[in-house]
Amino acid sequence: MKQNLEYLFSPKSIAIIGASSHPEKIGHIVLQNLQEMNFKGEIYPVNPKAKTILGLPVFSDIKSLPKKIDLAVITVPRGLAVKSVEELGEKGVKAVIVISAGFKEIGGKGYHQEQKLIEIAKKYNIALLGPNCLGLINTHANLNTTFATGIPNKGNISFFSQSGALCVAILDWALGENIGFSKFISLGNKAILDETDMIEYLGKDPKTKVILGYIENVCSGEKFIQTAKKVTRNKPILLIKSGRTAAGARAASSHTGAIAGSDKAYSTAFSKAGIIRVFDVETLFNLALAFSTQPLPQGPNLTIITNSGGPGIMAADICENSKLQMTRLSAETIQKLKQILPGYAALYNPIDIIGDADAKRYLDTIDVIVDDPNTHAILVLLSPTSAIAPQITELAKGIVKKCKNIPKPIFCVFMGKHHVKKGQKILLDNNIPCYLFPEPAIRSLETMYKHWEWTKKGEIKIEIPKRNLELAKKVINEAIVTKQREIVEFQALKILQAYNLPHPKTKLARSSDEAMHIAEEIGFPVVLKIASPSISHKTDVKGVIINLNSPKEVKNAFLEITSRAQRLRPEAHITGCLVQKMAPKGCKEVIVGFKRDDQFGPLIMFGLGGIYVEVLKDISFGLAPLTRDDAQNMIRQIKSYLLLKGFRGEPPVNFKAIEDIILIMSQLSLDLPEVFEAEFNPVLVNDKEALVADVRLIISANNNKKN
Amino acid sequence: MKQNLEYLFSPKSIAIIGASSHPEKIGHIVLQNLQEMNFKGEIYPVNPKAKTILGLPVFSDIKSLPKKIDLAVITVPRGLAVKSVEELGEKGVKAVIVISAGFKEIGGKGYHQEQKLIEIAKKYNIALLGPNCLGLINTHANLNTTFATGIPNKGNISFFSQSGALCVAILDWALGENIGFSKFISLGNKAILDETDMIEYLGKDPKTKVILGYIENVCSGEKFIQTAKKVTRNKPILLIKSGRTAAGARAASSHTGAIAGSDKAYSTAFSKAGIIRVFDVETLFNLALAFSTQPLPQGPNLTIITNSGGPGIMAADICENSKLQMTRLSAETIQKLKQILPGYAALYNPIDIIGDADAKRYLDTIDVIVDDPNTHAILVLLSPTSAIAPQITELAKGIVKKCKNIPKPIFCVFMGKHHVKKGQKILLDNNIPCYLFPEPAIRSLETMYKHWEWTKKGEIKIEIPKRNLELAKKVINEAIVTKQREIVEFQALKILQAYNLPHPKTKLARSSDEAMHIAEEIGFPVVLKIASPSISHKTDVKGVIINLNSPKEVKNAFLEITSRAQRLRPEAHITGCLVQKMAPKGCKEVIVGFKRDDQFGPLIMFGLGGIYVEVLKDISFGLAPLTRDDAQNMIRQIKSYLLLKGFRGEPPVNFKAIEDIILIMSQLSLDLPEVFEAEFNPVLVNDKEALVADVRLIISANNNKKN
Repeated sequence: MKQNLEYLFSPKSIAIIGASSHPEKIGHIVLQNLQEMNFKGEIYPVNPKAKTILGLPVFSDIKSLPKKIDLAVITVPRGLAVKSVEELGEKGVKAVIVISAGFKEIGGKGYHQEQKLIEIAKKYNIALLGPNCLGLINTHANLNTTFATGIPNKGNISFFSQSGALCVAILDWALGENIGFSKFISLGNKAILDETDMIEYLGKDPKTKVILGYIENVCSGEKFIQTAKKVTRNKPILLIKSGRTAAGARAASSHTGAIAGSDKAYSTAFSKAGIIRVFDVETLFNLALAFSTQPLPQGPNLTIITNSGGPGIMAADICENSKLQMTRLSAETIQKLKQILPGYAALYNPIDIIGDADAKRYLDTIDVIVDDPNTHAILVLLSPTSAIAPQITELAKGIVKKCKNIPKPIFCVFMGKHHVKKGQKILLDNNIPCYLFPEPAIRSLETMYKHWEWTKKGEIKIEIPKRNLELAKKVINEAIVTKQREIVEFQALKILQAYNLPHPKTKLARSSDEAMHIAEEIGFPVVLKIASPSISHKTDVKGVIINLNSPKEVKNAFLEITSRAQRLRPEAHITGCLVQKMAPKGCKEVIVGFKRDDQFGPLIMFGLGGIYVEVLKDISFGLAPLTRDDAQNMIRQIKSYLLLKGFRGEPPVNFKAIEDIILIMSQLSLDLPEVFEAEFNPVLVNDKEALVADVRLIISANNNKKN
Repeated sequence: MKQNLEYLFSPKSIAIIGASSHPEKIGHIVLQNLQEMNFKGEIYPVNPKAKTILGLPVFSDIKSLPKKIDLAVITVPRGLAVKSVEELGEKGVKAVIVISAGFKEIGGKGYHQEQKLIEIAKKYNIALLGPNCLGLINTHANLNTTFATGIPNKGNISFFSQSGALCVAILDWALGENIGFSKFISLGNKAILDETDMIEYLGKDPKTKVILGYIENVCSGEKFIQTAKKVTRNKPILLIKSGRTAAGARAASSHTGAIAGSDKAYSTAFSKAGIIRVFDVETLFNLALAFSTQPLPQGPNLTIITNSGGPGIMAADICENSKLQMTRLSAETIQKLKQILPGYAALYNPIDIIGDADAKRYLDTIDVIVDDPNTHAILVLLSPTSAIAPQITELAKGIVKKCKNIPKPIFCVFMGKHHVKKGQKILLDNNIPCYLFPEPAIRSLETMYKHWEWTKKGEIKIEIPKRNLELAKKVINEAIVTKQREIVEFQALKILQAYNLPHPKTKLARSSDEAMHIAEEIGFPVVLKIASPSISHKTDVKGVIINLNSPKEVKNAFLEITSRAQRLRPEAHITGCLVQKMAPKGCKEVIVGFKRDDQFGPLIMFGLGGIYVEVLKDISFGLAPLTRDDAQNMIRQIKSYLLLKGFRGEPPVNFKAIEDIILIMSQLSLDLPEVFEAEFNPVLVNDKEALVADVRLIISANNNKKN
């Protein structure tokens, strides 16, 4: 299908199924839009009744169309639409846009009709866009198959959207702001072509510099991540994913029937793929403007040139609250500034060239700063004082001349809407971003800087930890055969061994005497834990006794635990007790776990044990497979990371040991697809080691059913 | 001075000291602006050389001016400016605007000249604005004494600013957006008139509905809070306070020489006064638009009407992430909607009236929702689909007609910039806020809702806890006399007694025998702590031993502690040991403290003990005097509040007991101005009580010097 995408975006001939003479019908507007866009190829209107529409000869049906047709746009009602796709397939048409609605989004019969559509498209290998969509625009191919009004300028921004209405709004905004677009795609129900196909195509499209998108769900999680990850090395992808709250998700599912996955998983997937997640349309535009016109900053240092103190301070505040930094200007730069600026100017960043600055003083200062070796990005901030307002055109032209091709990003903020208007327009027309306020400019630059860091990050190899996969699979299969939903302590011990997970010495004792011997063998103090495949929550039966210091204490504890368990859970088979070496003093407890996400697969979790995870929800996430870098980020992301780093003179914990355990969890989640959820809890860490003291695996219900 | 503010804002006659014939001079532009504004009173230009300027007869000096002059605007250089104010004072002029610069903001001589200015203004009781300012505008009095270009429309928004350049930018923005203003004031160096004077005046001004401001510092903390608190009951105050980060503050202090206080104290002061703190100019405008045109919502429930699913979901997401809620529509409302909407519409909030909705469908839906009893606010969201785009004017007019005087706030979001432009203009011209995107509309509404909650909150009485003030003062005075900087354990015990603070039974033992007796008297287990006025960090000398269970253990501990202290700190006078009852098991530790802020006085702090405060910085703040409501909010604000509420079946702690201790700390901070910092740490809390186990007071260095 993918090779047919070229026919979708750059067709030489287009058939319009349902072309109409009625100016209000979609079949008419699409035709009109194509003509207005000055489409260079052939257009074939299809309508059983009309003779000519908008000056073009009409074909009565699909069969009577000429042989070689690249793209068909379908605007007829649902039933007819499905039939048409079949006929078009037979005719060898490579790409189809189904604008018609009434499919999956209305459920019931619509759903089944959409399934039929998918079947047909697959049979004929058709690149099918929609159904229930607005169509698409490719300004560079003079193509507009939408029924929206207005044609955007040519540009290097491409946009795809799961919401047709949002396409309309953004198109209207682009027209008003005079922003250029390259491709503009309404995805509709995504029966065949989805966001991943668009990302792949636009990633390779030389006319696209920035990819924007609005989605409510992702169709194929892993493919999406893999595809996007490659693209974002070279082109930024900015996505709005809506339905992120309960209310939003409810609205989303009543909208295009998309089931929104866990929002956490989406955020994690986006960051894994280097996709920039955006939460509102305004930010999307601000970022598009920045990315489409300016080079990425090669570091965090921002230099601010201003003619007004107040706004300069505000800008410095925003910069300090971001990942950017205020540049420390070089001594040479400050010397140069001294020579060109009046004595009352503030030479240190923000450089305040004072309210009486004219265009020349601005341009001279910019000249100096462009050459400053410490500066990675420049912000020119302006209040329309009486000194600069009359020279605003001159200044804007000067900035364009000086800065159009410098290797550092430059952003202008001309505050105001009246006297500065002409200057703003000159800048924007010449690809220098100009914002009304400091905030969006600096925030956009910050995102560019973070994206630059992403592009610099080399591809890090996945480490495959050594493990005895056979043993692990055996444990899982046994559980499935015996219809166990959980694998705990005793069986789980084998999993620890299979994955070479460091753990406190532990052995199963079937009698109190055996417990005493084991305790003596592994050394005091020890912990005793009930061992029974039927008891997963040991504390419910008070099945754990800690800090046992002598054989006698061990013996008593064994008898106490087993008899209590027998009494409280008479139906349970009790194997005995696990005898475990006590954790060294001063250990901290962390938790490593995973849960399988419907869309994106194993979502690995990390947090500090106890209240930090349970009450304060201080948890970080990553999607398997994880690199060591990912594991390090996960550890650093939690707020209680500071506790692991050590405080009050404590040494930091052994981070490498925790990373290893996180990486093993990642590998385990990939090795054992039958496991739906797993947890190492607690993992005991100090400055020397990290020991997995307890393990719990949950087998997915499907597996139990299967067996 | 304050009674003279009327002369500043609504003068009948104005003298311009430094009026000029040169069109580029400030003294010319001010005169021109006054004339262009069509000022109705007398204007007297003063210039030693010219005969007439801009058609007006010129006075050669201040002495030759007519007798009754309300306001003078000074544009002459610094030295002359100071002299002029003196002469104007002698003449009985009530209000003066000093536009001239070169005062405090340049330091050195400028600072001294400003002091002189203040002296003169006080002597003659002059309401003086500036120096180093842009002047002011009062659209309702046809007054424009600024040298900025352009006149804003009449409106009900007033704005004051410590940055003249920001005034210029905002003026320009207002002109471009056609936004009306009432008063527009550039504060300059705030030699006499400051933000508090403006808040007081504008609070009473019937032509001002919303007060906006930009400040870099506050001149008089307590007066500011008291004044603003009264005003915000009736009018919203929206302030930007910049210099909030280190970089910003550095820039601020090189700007108008204002010393920015602790940013935390500012935030706390603003919230105490009901001031809405804003962080960027864009938000300031979005909020000004909302507050100046719409009534406050009487509750959190927002109903969204949309013609497009995607933007509807985004809006629902934003709403759910705010303090607002998505309305659950009444059964009756849903019935009514069923009758007017097509079958495929989504009747539940967000109400999706679908892309083919025309103006009538929109207006019918609005009609139903206006009457819905559960709805507190309405958002009309629109994508310019082909169905609605041609009817945009009709729709906007319809909304104006229906909603101009309803008691619920209504916000429109017409997405786009081209087809929707006319509609947006009609709405804005008729005081219906219309935004380009859902985010700013919903965020503005959220702020209005929070402000409504503030206005509903009754004035809560300050509770004065019973205390023995004489005893407390005695302890402090003794410390001052003996040049102690710290009051700890032993002396501090008296402070606990003076304020009736519940604390674990504690007594001073001077010998090991006495320690044993005391321990038996108060009951085991006990803690022993070194008692020495010279040892403030007891742990440095291992001066605390806990969990002593017998007289013998107490005796040994006494000897161990005192001998070790003697050895490690041979210079210290050791009084003995404090014998303290051990805390009940399972207690949590909290910390209550205060620190005196330069601007706003005692800043009370609260947090969970140990790592929560020290490492995670999970602290909340309040300014004394605190009400019980304030104390409750402080407790609820920390993230680890959840731990106090109890989890895993634990009971919640006794919150009332913690509140009491916070209120006592507030009272103590007011009672004892000599104390610069104080801390109750730890305070041991469980479900029954809260006990102050340790106290530390720091005497301010000034007091030590004084004595």
